[in-house]
Amino acid sequence: MLLQLYRSVVVRLPQAIRVKSTPLRLCIQACSTNDSLEPQHPSLTFSDDNSRTRRWKVMGTLLGLGVVLVYHEHRCRASQESPRMYSKEDVRSHNNPKTGVWVTLGSEVFDVTKFVDLHPGGPSKLMLAAGGPLEPFWALYAVHNQPHVRELLAEYKIGELNPEDSMSPSVEASDPYADDPIRHPALRINSQRPFNAEPPPELLTEGYITPNPIFFTRNHLPVPNLDPHTYRLHVVGAPGGQSLSLSLDDLHKFPKHEVTVTLQCAGNRRSEMSKVKEVKGLEWRTGAISTARWAGARLCDVLAQAGHRLCDSEAHVCFEGLDSDPTGTAYGASIPLARAMDPEAEVLLAYEMNGQPLPRDHGFPVRVVVPGVVGARHVKWLGRVSVESEESYSHWQRRDYKGFSPSVDWDTVNFDLAPSIQELPIQSAITQPQDGAIVESGEVTIKGYAWSGGGRAVIRVDVSVDGGLTWQEAELEGEEQCPRKAWAWRIWQLKAQVPAEQKELNIICKAVDDSYNVQPDTVAPIWNLRGVLSNAWHRVHVQVVP
Amino acid sequence: MLLQLYRSVVVRLPQAIRVKSTPLRLCIQACSTNDSLEPQHPSLTFSDDNSRTRRWKVMGTLLGLGVVLVYHEHRCRASQESPRMYSKEDVRSHNNPKTGVWVTLGSEVFDVTKFVDLHPGGPSKLMLAAGGPLEPFWALYAVHNQPHVRELLAEYKIGELNPEDSMSPSVEASDPYADDPIRHPALRINSQRPFNAEPPPELLTEGYITPNPIFFTRNHLPVPNLDPHTYRLHVVGAPGGQSLSLSLDDLHKFPKHEVTVTLQCAGNRRSEMSKVKEVKGLEWRTGAISTARWAGARLCDVLAQAGHRLCDSEAHVCFEGLDSDPTGTAYGASIPLARAMDPEAEVLLAYEMNGQPLPRDHGFPVRVVVPGVVGARHVKWLGRVSVESEESYSHWQRRDYKGFSPSVDWDTVNFDLAPSIQELPIQSAITQPQDGAIVESGEVTIKGYAWSGGGRAVIRVDVSVDGGLTWQEAELEGEEQCPRKAWAWRIWQLKAQVPAEQKELNIICKAVDDSYNVQPDTVAPIWNLRGVLSNAWHRVHVQVVP
Repeated sequence: MLLQLYRSVVVRLPQAIRVKSTPLRLCIQACSTNDSLEPQHPSLTFSDDNSRTRRWKVMGTLLGLGVVLVYHEHRCRASQESPRMYSKEDVRSHNNPKTGVWVTLGSEVFDVTKFVDLHPGGPSKLMLAAGGPLEPFWALYAVHNQPHVRELLAEYKIGELNPEDSMSPSVEASDPYADDPIRHPALRINSQRPFNAEPPPELLTEGYITPNPIFFTRNHLPVPNLDPHTYRLHVVGAPGGQSLSLSLDDLHKFPKHEVTVTLQCAGNRRSEMSKVKEVKGLEWRTGAISTARWAGARLCDVLAQAGHRLCDSEAHVCFEGLDSDPTGTAYGASIPLARAMDPEAEVLLAYEMNGQPLPRDHGFPVRVVVPGVVGARHVKWLGRVSVESEESYSHWQRRDYKGFSPSVDWDTVNFDLAPSIQELPIQSAITQPQDGAIVESGEVTIKGYAWSGGGRAVIRVDVSVDGGLTWQEAELEGEEQCPRKAWAWRIWQLKAQVPAEQKELNIICKAVDDSYNVQPDTVAPIWNLRGVLSNAWHRVHVQVVP
Repeated sequence: MLLQLYRSVVVRLPQAIRVKSTPLRLCIQACSTNDSLEPQHPSLTFSDDNSRTRRWKVMGTLLGLGVVLVYHEHRCRASQESPRMYSKEDVRSHNNPKTGVWVTLGSEVFDVTKFVDLHPGGPSKLMLAAGGPLEPFWALYAVHNQPHVRELLAEYKIGELNPEDSMSPSVEASDPYADDPIRHPALRINSQRPFNAEPPPELLTEGYITPNPIFFTRNHLPVPNLDPHTYRLHVVGAPGGQSLSLSLDDLHKFPKHEVTVTLQCAGNRRSEMSKVKEVKGLEWRTGAISTARWAGARLCDVLAQAGHRLCDSEAHVCFEGLDSDPTGTAYGASIPLARAMDPEAEVLLAYEMNGQPLPRDHGFPVRVVVPGVVGARHVKWLGRVSVESEESYSHWQRRDYKGFSPSVDWDTVNFDLAPSIQELPIQSAITQPQDGAIVESGEVTIKGYAWSGGGRAVIRVDVSVDGGLTWQEAELEGEEQCPRKAWAWRIWQLKAQVPAEQKELNIICKAVDDSYNVQPDTVAPIWNLRGVLSNAWHRVHVQVVP
């Protein structure tokens, strides 16, 4: 049976990333089919996203007509000679225009150097795959998986991968991270152990929903291996109530609740803060934020079953993960009971992410989702829930994820004096064009995201291309939000007219939420020693060519 | 009986402001005893405010010992000659150090020019009364009403007011504002008709609770004359429920709910915005904000009695005032039903303000109080409440009190595209020292207020004395706040050390709320054509003398 599962999962994994084969890992892989890089069809899965469907149709046309014609002369060159053999290392070393740009599909190797600039999705998107396999990207953008694209690609074939090269070097058995899942190669890694990575800007706002494989990942510890059949969630009962030990099936018996929620790490955009003065933390750029459709049981329903009620005195719901450090200390966090018990706050014990079981990196089999609240409280691999009179005593609740004045340093900080971050402030960032890019004059498309905590809707994004002297309103895309429950971001876009004589643009975005909160102009006055809450205006400088 | 009421009210009004005497107005005056300027005893009324009591004790000691000794040589000069007679106009023209500083108490006139700098409460506070009567200020600060203070004052007597001068010129009968109440002379008037005025900064943060007579007043129309005996509040019933016509007594039968709430006008600090570019609106400085203890029936209880329940579809509670323009159009506004029906949101139909019936300027006999929400929704002189599927169609809900991008002008504005302001963003301002002041080097006390909408607590105020290069944390005073229900401001204070060689200070304050929202650095990027939501860092420039 395990072998059957193994086949059904692994045969669909692209050879280039099929690195695990020992029987010991079969169970893990069976538990994490959702980590495999199966194609997702945006236009089918997210039927609201018409603009995207239209865009792909346009691209399809380009691919079907223009590109094929341009490359007509390449046809019939497909080698019938015995192929040249390359190692994965050979491919990996061809990852930029100077060395040439190679990619693989299955066991075939392609030199697409000359195609990069002609890629209908833009050169930067193709370059994300440079030196590696195409499959993870084609899985995200299913439009590629068509005969005319494969035909086009065949023109660039230069050889095949060595068969023995598909075997990866074995990992260190004592490495606590040895069982971490396979990740999507597009993720920009900020830390390998624990694994912390963000999607690149050009993929981040490609759609309203972030595909699971590129959803930003913020782990504090190794990813635990949990067997969904033996998994139990322990919910401590109220005095007079009863404690619960819930299997996954038990959790599925509660009414299933679905909600689209943006998660953001408190450290998103920390890299801008560390330019002001050194901070302690991972160098997140603009990608420690992502959006998914989550489904699960409502926390209020589960707590009610354990006999919990709202009480007059302040109380907190404490969560404990099943991830732990070598001393056995688990990740933990808490939220106020009032939020947990409010059905309108839609706090979930989620077992689905974008219609799939949770990926291992995102808490398989169950995580907390607290709409409108900092990512750190969305405890993954959830093992225990209890109601306490005090906040969680976890390090991450009490000695981290708090904001301080710019005057506070590591000698003067008193973590007891600042409240733990719960709702996050208004945030926005530019994902296109990127800092340092070269754009053509005429119509320049500026794109990004905006989000606010606490269910506050984004009502406006102002964009400046002259460093803040004048402002234009961006068009807000994405789903309309329920009042008071705007849990998800808005993608925004502005088509700015840039005259040919313009040499550069200083692009800025700033958002406003429905409490009319705005972002601060600059980073330095909100600098804090942990580099959290970095939500100043986002600034991007680009060169203009006529 | 009316005459008796007249006596009991009017004889306590200081002669200098006793301007109304026609029988026609007796009823109004009887209904508005709370507008009279009776002494309020902070140390009795607000027993929590120990620091204030202590301060007065210190001042009392100063007055009782030091000052009396210093002025010993003035004793026994009290004239037994027949007094010189002055008109109120004479007094009014002596309102600054150049002309001399005169004040009145009852019918006596005093030249206190030489005492100004020795005033234990500070020269600026005494100067608020320059050229007019002392009574309104002594009513606020009851410590003055003591024998040794009267004795001290007697030294400065220069004569008496002409008896005929106590009669004011009669007001124009056709003036719709003729019946507006008498106001406290300390209020800085931004518009006389309708009456709009704010307390001066030095009084604004004198205490945590703003005394009724100097609570900022924002009227859109003439103040109506309502007889509390015939007053009725009409509450439109739900389908299947019944409409209510509630007398004041009926309203008192609902459970009485008390809550301390800060009200802020959307236009507070507009004067800073209009320095960037012209805006439409009154030139409010930092004083369009005040805090009171309100009591009344909870709106949710009244709505429930009329059969209203929370429904799945979005709905709004519309309020109509009994103030109206010459065409009969009343002031109106609305809030979401979800807020109105939430007991935790504590929305009141208030009939008491700081333990007194509402003053006429603040909605006598009943106003709405919506904690955490812009002042414009706290409808005064409440006449009608209904639940509708749409927001109020009032001009002030749909064509005013909305925020726009700095790029929007009166030619391009589309009021339908912006949400009506409800919750307000984080705000703070410096009330001491004031812009342009001269301070002595050494320890300089910097003081102000901070508040955020939506029940979000102020968690920190950062103060800079070097234009934003470095920051210090201010001490937060005032009551601790309930989580999620921080409806009232915090007064803050910082004692900054200023070296003698320092020539000037560029003082800035900025606050942070518990969603870690911060104020924007500068005004221009949040400029909007109506000059609302002016919450950039507050900046004050002062000269330093050694």
